[in-house]
This record gives sequence, structure tokens and C-alpha cells, in this order.
Amino acid sequence: MNGKMKVAVMNKVGEMGYEERPIPKVKNKEVLVQLEYVGICGSDLHYYETGRIGDYIVKPPFVLGHEPGGVVVEIGKEVTNLKVGDRVALEPGKTCGKCEFCKTGRYNLCPDVIFFATPPYDGVFQEYVAHDADLCFKLPDNVSTLSGALIEPLAVGMHAASQGDAHVGQTAVVTGAGAIGLVSVLALKVRGVSNIIVVDIMQKRLDKALKLGATNIINASETDAVSKLMEITDGKGCDLVIETAGTEITTNQAIHMVKKGSNIVLVGYGKTGMMNLEMSLALDKEITFKTVFRYRHIYPMAIDAVASGKINLEDIVTDIFEFDDIQNAMDSSVKNKADIVKAVVRIK
Amino acid sequence: MNGKMKVAVMNKVGEMGYEERPIPKVKNKEVLVQLEYVGICGSDLHYYETGRIGDYIVKPPFVLGHEPGGVVVEIGKEVTNLKVGDRVALEPGKTCGKCEFCKTGRYNLCPDVIFFATPPYDGVFQEYVAHDADLCFKLPDNVSTLSGALIEPLAVGMHAASQGDAHVGQTAVVTGAGAIGLVSVLALKVRGVSNIIVVDIMQKRLDKALKLGATNIINASETDAVSKLMEITDGKGCDLVIETAGTEITTNQAIHMVKKGSNIVLVGYGKTGMMNLEMSLALDKEITFKTVFRYRHIYPMAIDAVASGKINLEDIVTDIFEFDDIQNAMDSSVKNKADIVKAVVRIK
Amino acid sequence: MNGKMKVAVMNKVGEMGYEERPIPKVKNKEVLVQLEYVGICGSDLHYYETGRIGDYIVKPPFVLGHEPGGVVVEIGKEVTNLKVGDRVALEPGKTCGKCEFCKTGRYNLCPDVIFFATPPYDGVFQEYVAHDADLCFKLPDNVSTLSGALIEPLAVGMHAASQGDAHVGQTAVVTGAGAIGLVSVLALKVRGVSNIIVVDIMQKRLDKALKLGATNIINASETDAVSKLMEITDGKGCDLVIETAGTEITTNQAIHMVKKGSNIVLVGYGKTGMMNLEMSLALDKEITFKTVFRYRHIYPMAIDAVASGKINLEDIVTDIFEFDDIQNAMDSSVKNKADIVKAVVRIK
Amino acid sequence: MNGKMKVAVMNKVGEMGYEERPIPKVKNKEVLVQLEYVGICGSDLHYYETGRIGDYIVKPPFVLGHEPGGVVVEIGKEVTNLKVGDRVALEPGKTCGKCEFCKTGRYNLCPDVIFFATPPYDGVFQEYVAHDADLCFKLPDNVSTLSGALIEPLAVGMHAASQGDAHVGQTAVVTGAGAIGLVSVLALKVRGVSNIIVVDIMQKRLDKALKLGATNIINASETDAVSKLMEITDGKGCDLVIETAGTEITTNQAIHMVKKGSNIVLVGYGKTGMMNLEMSLALDKEITFKTVFRYRHIYPMAIDAVASGKINLEDIVTDIFEFDDIQNAMDSSVKNKADIVKAVVRIK
Repeated sequence: MNGKMKVAVMNKVGEMGYEERPIPKVKNKEVLVQLEYVGICGSDLHYYETGRIGDYIVKPPFVLGHEPGGVVVEIGKEVTNLKVGDRVALEPGKTCGKCEFCKTGRYNLCPDVIFFATPPYDGVFQEYVAHDADLCFKLPDNVSTLSGALIEPLAVGMHAASQGDAHVGQTAVVTGAGAIGLVSVLALKVRGVSNIIVVDIMQKRLDKALKLGATNIINASETDAVSKLMEITDGKGCDLVIETAGTEITTNQAIHMVKKGSNIVLVGYGKTGMMNLEMSLALDKEITFKTVFRYRHIYPMAIDAVASGKINLEDIVTDIFEFDDIQNAMDSSVKNKADIVKAVVRIK
Repeated sequence: MNGKMKVAVMNKVGEMGYEERPIPKVKNKEVLVQLEYVGICGSDLHYYETGRIGDYIVKPPFVLGHEPGGVVVEIGKEVTNLKVGDRVALEPGKTCGKCEFCKTGRYNLCPDVIFFATPPYDGVFQEYVAHDADLCFKLPDNVSTLSGALIEPLAVGMHAASQGDAHVGQTAVVTGAGAIGLVSVLALKVRGVSNIIVVDIMQKRLDKALKLGATNIINASETDAVSKLMEITDGKGCDLVIETAGTEITTNQAIHMVKKGSNIVLVGYGKTGMMNLEMSLALDKEITFKTVFRYRHIYPMAIDAVASGKINLEDIVTDIFEFDDIQNAMDSSVKNKADIVKAVVRIK
Repeated sequence: MNGKMKVAVMNKVGEMGYEERPIPKVKNKEVLVQLEYVGICGSDLHYYETGRIGDYIVKPPFVLGHEPGGVVVEIGKEVTNLKVGDRVALEPGKTCGKCEFCKTGRYNLCPDVIFFATPPYDGVFQEYVAHDADLCFKLPDNVSTLSGALIEPLAVGMHAASQGDAHVGQTAVVTGAGAIGLVSVLALKVRGVSNIIVVDIMQKRLDKALKLGATNIINASETDAVSKLMEITDGKGCDLVIETAGTEITTNQAIHMVKKGSNIVLVGYGKTGMMNLEMSLALDKEITFKTVFRYRHIYPMAIDAVASGKINLEDIVTDIFEFDDIQNAMDSSVKNKADIVKAVVRIK
Repeated sequence: MNGKMKVAVMNKVGEMGYEERPIPKVKNKEVLVQLEYVGICGSDLHYYETGRIGDYIVKPPFVLGHEPGGVVVEIGKEVTNLKVGDRVALEPGKTCGKCEFCKTGRYNLCPDVIFFATPPYDGVFQEYVAHDADLCFKLPDNVSTLSGALIEPLAVGMHAASQGDAHVGQTAVVTGAGAIGLVSVLALKVRGVSNIIVVDIMQKRLDKALKLGATNIINASETDAVSKLMEITDGKGCDLVIETAGTEITTNQAIHMVKKGSNIVLVGYGKTGMMNLEMSLALDKEITFKTVFRYRHIYPMAIDAVASGKINLEDIVTDIFEFDDIQNAMDSSVKNKADIVKAVVRIK
């Protein structure tokens, strides 16, 4: 497809703008996708506010956005799994396929990954993107491209639940009820966990968690979270914690909350990178700490879970912004983190 | 068997003595074992020096010692797996068999365990003990009762290696070359790990590690352990760390040393119980932290490994003390931790 | 509790009767349960029709029945987990707790198990039974004792699903829609499997499967099951088969149906014990065959799954017989296997 | 590198010849390897004798041979892991990297694999081959290119041991002492299994197995293999069987030999593709049947195992033929299967 497209770019910290760029050409194994929705992730906001995450430094003009859903408008010569008109969710990371991590199926750890919106690689706050066909997953008729965009954050929750071996019969706790906490609740539900207890300090988020399927909530600004959890579980503790708040406090609470021999899955990043943890207690209880870096193998099962009606993924969205309003989308999301739990940009 | 036996007791912090007690009567499913060797563990020394470990408080007179090897001299009416004259290693913990941990095979986490030398339950620095027959494991002819006593610490190393899924083809690091570090080296060898790199700050311990099968040693008092490890591995890092030193420094080194997606097994307890860890890096690398509380299912395979000649377990012993010399055994072990890496008491 | 109770006994092949026996005395760790419902299992019918299963030979008078639900009416002195009035499901096998299978958590393989209605041990078609408290699982208020009785067959299905590692995102096939096939469908649902395809040759059973949550059915008397499955899955095949029919035909169909690298779980026993299987194809596809012997660790999670409302376990019941009508219950179940998919005896 | 090379081709069933072909050009990510040794596999002989294996049909002139070791003589522009002069073992299958099997790390199941000497793709009985650099694994100085060629069959044994979760403390049986049986013995040793019992009907092969590390042998032409195994194990049975003979008899023996809950790994293909198996007994014992199709992720660990000196891989070789003698090499191997357990062709 020839022509130009509109691209939203981060021009400097705190400033968005638009550029016109050529619509990308598809290679043989790629498809061209007209984007309909792209979610705003916490990492997009972090780049926008500070210009960097660790060693990844934004060099403007830079395109943010890595949670895309759209429609296939052109296919490469060797593409067989998709056709024009297919609605798709795009997995954002292209990996090498050759390293020890790729070969052993842990492609999320590929050192040569090219991931949307991770410097120096542009993201997808734009009208079109050419992407590897095997990373574009067809959405069934009953799954919207809005849900398609949200498969990406759901994938993080589902990978966390998978890392923690969440399963039927467990009592699980999610600490932190931000976007990742909420998708973790959905992921636990999908895997058959009946008892899901969510801990946060903002009642609005906890109410959202309840709506999405949490069976209990604990407002840690009002009560001692560990004591309350023990009360709920008749002193037994829980079988699993998915920790998404990224704080020392919640991580240590997790150590106290779980039964002996349990898994704690760490998803949230702390501000300083360091955490002072009660490791002797963790050893006494023979706890396993699993960690999460993005996800792997999740898209097909996540789409299946949404399509089957087990969860309503759109329910996590609190705000939808128009593509023309992206400056406001970013600014509002930064300023109002308590209310805007999950924002999405409507591209088309 | 009727009669009296000699028992070494801890009368108060830093003071050992002897008592005469009746030889225990065997119950139907028990055997009476005449002890030949009992190892001295770091926990024995800790109780001896301070009177407590966490909430476990010594109430004198208390019998220390939980690493026993001996000979069966009497069997209960229902015992079928052993006969008089069999030489055995004794697994020190009796568990309930009924709780969720026992039923799921994780009996080391049984809350009702009765474990030798863990208050309020006496240990086995004494001439005889009656013990459950299913916890007494027969030693083949080519395994001494001295090795039998050392099965207990080896079991910790083997459980650590098992928790870490140590396997053929890996490069593994052991941080800390005390008794548990050394048995971890042996355990890695037994599981087929070829490249074993040991880190410590005492050269004498490192030399011992080399003798026991380490392929490389790093003296962290002389060089930066992480840089050295990266040099040895051509910048790739290692596949596994077994951390036995119990320090923040070594645990953070482990986070830097391992490849992405690897396991770190935490065995060593820190002095304060807290550790300030680089968790963001751990998440970036999707590291798993496994922890170790005692062991489970290890005795038969540990005895098999020793019997097969794969490792020479007696080589970890640095000092053998006579039963009559137990005050000196304890005092020397406390004072001279650098040299007395592993001491054993000869009971008979 | 003193007094007599009514016991239904198998007096010879094809003949039931009643006896009066003393109400059992509870030991310290037991509870006395007044039974309300006991399911009729295929193995009960097999003993009733032929007097034996393999080396297990009925010596009359013998009590059949091992799927019990009831109410605690008395507790032993050391029982703490239950109280009088608690409604419970009873796991029917007492195991030794000492053998290598028990210690490693695979207690269903304990060679010394005492299992209800497996000769020489009586079952529970009777008014009361004394049973180990740790094998009696309290039912929440919203789970009936009828469901409690059905936990036993559900446990087989859940163990099968567990052995097969059934999980979200899969397409699973169940071959055979008898009682065990139906509980396998429920178990797959509970574990989050969305696409469940059931194969049988009796339309009535297939209709039942659809009602219980199957997403597709294949009547193999009308169509080629493998071709139909390939059609449904766009030629990809399925990710898992749970084989409950116990025939060579269905087992070979399973080999054709699954994707490479998949699991086939064998639950159904064949008539002759032998099966002529396409093993070269199985090797080409690197298929794993898991098998199922009873179950382990399932009761708590099965009760949780029922209590959470994910499945309606009572829906599998086709017939309820009164205790006084047990001769008819057995005879009808034997004669009318096509219609009586799952029968239960109401004891009280 | 320009020039011609000598290639051995199968001209028709039972007839080898030579052709001169251009030395292959290396692509950017490939290396050119001058071959030194190529092993003869049973599948090469099968193609040679019958012209086909299942649906894979030889269209002459066809190049056999897929067990290569050699020296890098040229590298592609983008190759960084190898340099000219490196001695390498070549993993023979190029996979797509994009399918669900590749992405999940099970690349041996890739439907689009291009595998040496599997029609229509030529093998490597030739002087040079251009191959993907990531499939060429550098040999340490102490590993010969002869051992390098043998890494391929060893990989089958190591994958079998891995599929069976072979580990320290087990008693394992290998049925069949042909080339794959022998590498299975080596693989078990490498993984720390102490007790390895080999069953065959040819004493010469059993003697070889003993030399390679078997601890017991059973000549099934002289004694009942199951009874003998039970005698050796004090009636307990074994923990694992690796079945390489590919017969109904040995597979049913395996079902009788293993303890409850054990793994049987099926590696050997039967003549008819069908096997009549005692599946009811397998269910009673809750046995798992794992199967093996080639291998995955094994080359680095296999090379490490050889380099570490744990096993002497060259010991499995019974015959070395010169490249000019390939007609005789193939004919002798076909005629004299009892004696020529493992033959290798010296190319240079």
C-alpha cells in the first residue's frame, strides 16, 4: 500500500506531536495492519515522563505504544495464516529464533529482541504497522480489536499466573490493583482459581477488582493486610501471591501471607530497584519467588480465554482517548493515576 | 534392651555435661540404634552459643546432635525392612503423615514434625536412640557409619541441587564453601554438573572445595567475584547458583552471575533475617529464587550416590572428636570456624 | 454411638441382601459419619456381575459402595478438623503414610491401601461408617451431600485432567461419555479448557455431555471420529485426549487426533487387558501416554470447584435409588447401562 | 570456497556410488564444514535396504548420512560464534523458528524441518557441507571429530534419558543393546544413575554394554528377563525403562519391570508399527509412556558430558570404514548387524 500515514511521536519529555511518514512496505512474511486501538502502558508513561527506563533511553522523535489491535490490509507473499480483513492482536516482540533462549522456548529472554516502543525501536501510536505474520494473531468474530489491544497487558497477567502455577482449588492474593493487578485477577479466574483476594490502598481500584472477579478485597490503608488475609483464610494463609505493586511492603506482606512451600510471583518493579526482604522467613517457609519479564506463548490462549467468554477484557478499560487527543491522553494518564487505571487510544 | 546409656547434654550456654539415662524402649515400628558417629551441625553450635534459633529456645538439659549413623541392635515387632546388625543412617524428622504437606510429599514442611535437636525435642549425642524404622536407611557394605552420619548434611546439598534443577551441561556456582557449600559441590557432581565454580573468602575452604570436585574457585577477598565469573564463562554467566553464605553480598552477586531465566537456590541464612536485594535486575532477568528448608526424599538417593563411588563423602570431614571430649568438640568448633569446616563426634 | 445399623450386602453374584451390624466405634483420629448418599460405580457393578476384578475376589457377604457423602455424628478424641453436624465427602482409601509412594505424595499407589469396597475390605452401602478424620472433607453450605458423594467420581476426572496437564487455551477431546467421560468434561471445564469435544456412539450420552459443557460432540456410530475432529480443528488436531472408553479403537483414534508432542490420558480399562496400538505413529508424534489409577490430592480442590459454582456436579446423576431398593438399583444399573449413566443410592 | 567435492550417493536400493558436485556456497549465517567423520545410522541402512521409511521415499541419487563431525573452513558474513579451524559437531535439522512447536522450544517436532538424509533432503556422506552456524557446535580441544560425529546418536540417548527424567538414585533398565541402547546407557551414566541393567539376547552386545558402564546385564535368550530383574532388585522392580529394541515383547516386559508410577521411554520402532500391549496392567501401575522423536537442546550438554570425561563416546564404535569403501561399509553393516553395532565413515 502506498501513501502516507499519521504518526504520534514523543518530541521530548512531556511533549507529544504528530508526523507524516510513509506507510510501511510489507516484507514476504509480514502483514500490514491498520491499527484501531493501542493501549497506553505504564512503561509508555514512564518514558514520557522521564525519557528513560534503566538503560533504555528515548531519542526523539520516538513512537510510543506497544499494545495494538487492528485489521490486516495487506499480506506479504509468503503469508498463509492470515488474509486481508482479518482482525488481529499483535504480539510486539520480534525475536531471533537462534539463541539458546529462543531455541528452548523462552523467547521473551532473547537478547536480540526488537520490541515495539523500547528504544531504539519505535512503537505503534500510528495508523499502520508492518509486522511479522506469525506475531499477528487472528481474533475470532466475538473479540473486538479493542480487546485485541488489551491482549498484551492480559498476557502479562497470564504469564504471571502461569509462572506461579495458579490452579483450581487455590486461594490466591493479588497485591496491587493497577492495570497489571487487574489483568492478574482475570488470569487467575481463567485458570480456575476460585478464591481471589486483592490488596490495594485505593478503594476505587479495589471496587474495580471486585467487579472483575475478585472474591475478597483488602484495603491496606484501613486494615493490616496480613492479619486480614489470615482472618479470611482461617489462619491458613494463601497458596499464591501475585505481587504487582512493586513495593518492599507488599513483597514482605506476601512472604507472611503464603503457606509454606508456596509461590510468590513478582511482577511489579520497585522505584529504586532494591528491596529489603525477610529472606530468613522465606527460607523457613521454603517459598519460591518467580519473576516475570513480559510473557511467552500467551497470545493464543489469551485470545481463546476472551473468546470463550470466561472474562470480559474490555471491563478493565477506564478511559478511551482519540488519536488526535494524544497529548491529553498522555498528560491525563500521568496526572491522574488513581482514576485512569487503563487507558486506550482509538486510532481509527 | 535394658540398661543405661551415656548422654551428652547442653547444661547451659557454652557448657556441656553428661547424664546417664535409660536405654530407650523400641515401639512396634521402631528400631534401637547404637550410634557410632554423630556430626556437629552449625545449628548445634548456634544453640550452644546462644541458646536459641528464632523461636526455638533450648531448655537445659538438652541433647544436641541430629546427624547420626549407627548399628541396629534391636527391632520392634512390626519392623520388616531392617534386622539386627544392619548399619544405618537416620533421617532425623518424624512427620505426621496426615497434613496437606505430608500428603503432597512435602513432608519437610509438616508443621508437627519432631526433629532431633530442635527444641523441645532432644537430639542424639548419646549412645542409643529408638527411631522409626522407615526413617532408618540401611547402608550398603561399602558405606561406613561415618558416611552414614554425613548423609544428613549431604541431604541438604542434594535438596538444594534438586530445588535448583541442577543438571548435565550446566555451569553452576556455589557461593560459600562451609560445610553446606561443600556438600552442595558434591551434590552438583552427583547430578552430572561438570563445571562447578566455588566462591569464598577463605583460601583454605576453597582448597577443600577444589579437592572435592570444584572445577574453579574464586577467592572473593582478592578479586571481584562477578567479574571473575564472567571471565571464566566468556561473559555468558552461569546457569545456577547455590547460595550458602547467607549474605546480602553473595546473594546480589548471584543475581549478577546467572544467565537470564536461571535459578538461584538460597540455602544460607543471614544474620539479621533481612536482605536488601537487587530485585529489579532479578525481574529483568526473570530469575527464579528457590529456597531450601531441610530436605525430603533424599536419603535413599544420597546413600546410593555414596555407595556408587561417585563422591567420597568422608572427605568433607576436617575433625573427629571422641564422645568423652564433647565439651572440647563444641568449644573448638565454635572458636575455630575457619579450620573446622566439618566436625564429627565418634560415639563408639 | 451404640446400636445397630442396616447394611446392604452382596450375598452372591447378582444377589443383594441386608444385615444388621453394630454401629462402628470411632477411634481417636476417626469420625463416625451417618451416610446420606452413596454412588454406584462401574466397579461395584463389575463385582456384582462377576464376583471379581482381576485378583480382587469378592467373599460374601461383602459390602459394595465407595462414593459416600454424609454427616458427622460423632468425633474421636483427637479430631480437631471436624465437629458433629459437619457434612462431609469421604475419600475412600486409607494409606500407610510410610512407603516410598506415600512419602513422595503419590499415596494412590500405596501397596497397603485399605479402600472401600475393594476385597477384602467392605464398602459403605450402609447407614454409618467410622473413617479417618483426615479423609473426611467438610462440605461448604452450598454443596449437598449428594454432590459430596459424587466428589469421588469427579476426583477421577480431575486426576485425569491433572495427569494430562489440561489448561487454558487447549482443545481437548474426551472419548467415551459414560460417567467417567462426563466427569472428565467437568474437570476440563474447571481447569479452564474452552474447547471440549466428546466422542461416543450413544446419542443420549452425547446429549448429556453437551448439557454438561462439551462444546462439540461426535457420534462415532455415524461419522469417522478422526476425520470429524480434524474438520472441527481445521486440520490441526487436538492438544489432549482423555480416553475413558477403554477400547483399542478409541485409543488408536486418540493417537491420530492429537497434535505432535501432546498427552493422551488413559482412564478406561479394556475388556481383555490388552490393546493393539499404533505405537510407531505415537513415536513419530512424540506423544506421551499418561495413565490414571484412582486419584490423589483432589478432594479439596474438587469440593472448591463445586462450591464456586463452576460446575453443577449433580447434573451427572441420571437415577437415584432408595436404600431399601438396592437389589433393583444394582440390577437396573447392570441391565440398562445406556440409560443409567450415573446412579446414586439414597441411604437416609 | 570454489571447487568440486566427492559425494557418496545411493543410486538404488543396495547400490552406492560417487558423484562430483560443487562445494556448497555459504550463506551469511552459515559455515562451510569439511567433514571428517560421519556415522552410519540404522535409518541410513533402512533407506539403503528398502528405499523408504514410512512416507519418506528415496529418489536416487540420494545422499545418506546425518551424523557428522568436521572442521570449519569458511564462515558466512554474519557468523560470530565460530571461526575457521574450529572443530564442530553438526546438529542435522534446520527448523522454521515460527511454528507453535519451534516457539515453545520443541523444535524437533517442527513440521517444516529440513533434516539431513531424510528425503527429499540430502545427507552428508560427502566432503563438505554448508550448514547454519547456530547448528554447528564447537568441540573443545579434548573432544575429537569422531566423537563429534557420535554426538548425534548420543543425543537420542540423552533425549530419551531426559524424557524419562532419569536421575540420581534410580535403578534403570535399558532393553536392547544396539547403538541406541548403548548411548542410552551412556546417557543414564551422565545423568548420575548408578544402577543400569541392560537386557538383550546377544551376549556380544551385552558385553559391550558392560564395558560402557552397565552395572548388570540380562541375556534374555537364557533367562526370563522380568524374573531376573526382580531378583536383582529384591522384588522392587526398576524406576525407569528405556526401551530401544522396538518389540512387543520388550515393551510388555518393561510394563512388568517398572515400579508403580514409573516412566517407560519408548525409543525403538517396531517392524509393523503396531504393538499389542498389556495396558490394563499399565493403568493399574499408573505408568507413563514417554516417546522419543529425535531430540532437542541436547548438543551443548552432550558435548559437555563428553568433554568432562564422564563418558568415553568413542567406545561405542565397533567399525570405522574409509570413505572410498562406502559400498562395503553399507553392505557389511546390513549383513552383520550383530557385530557391527556402530559403524562410522572416515571422510578425510
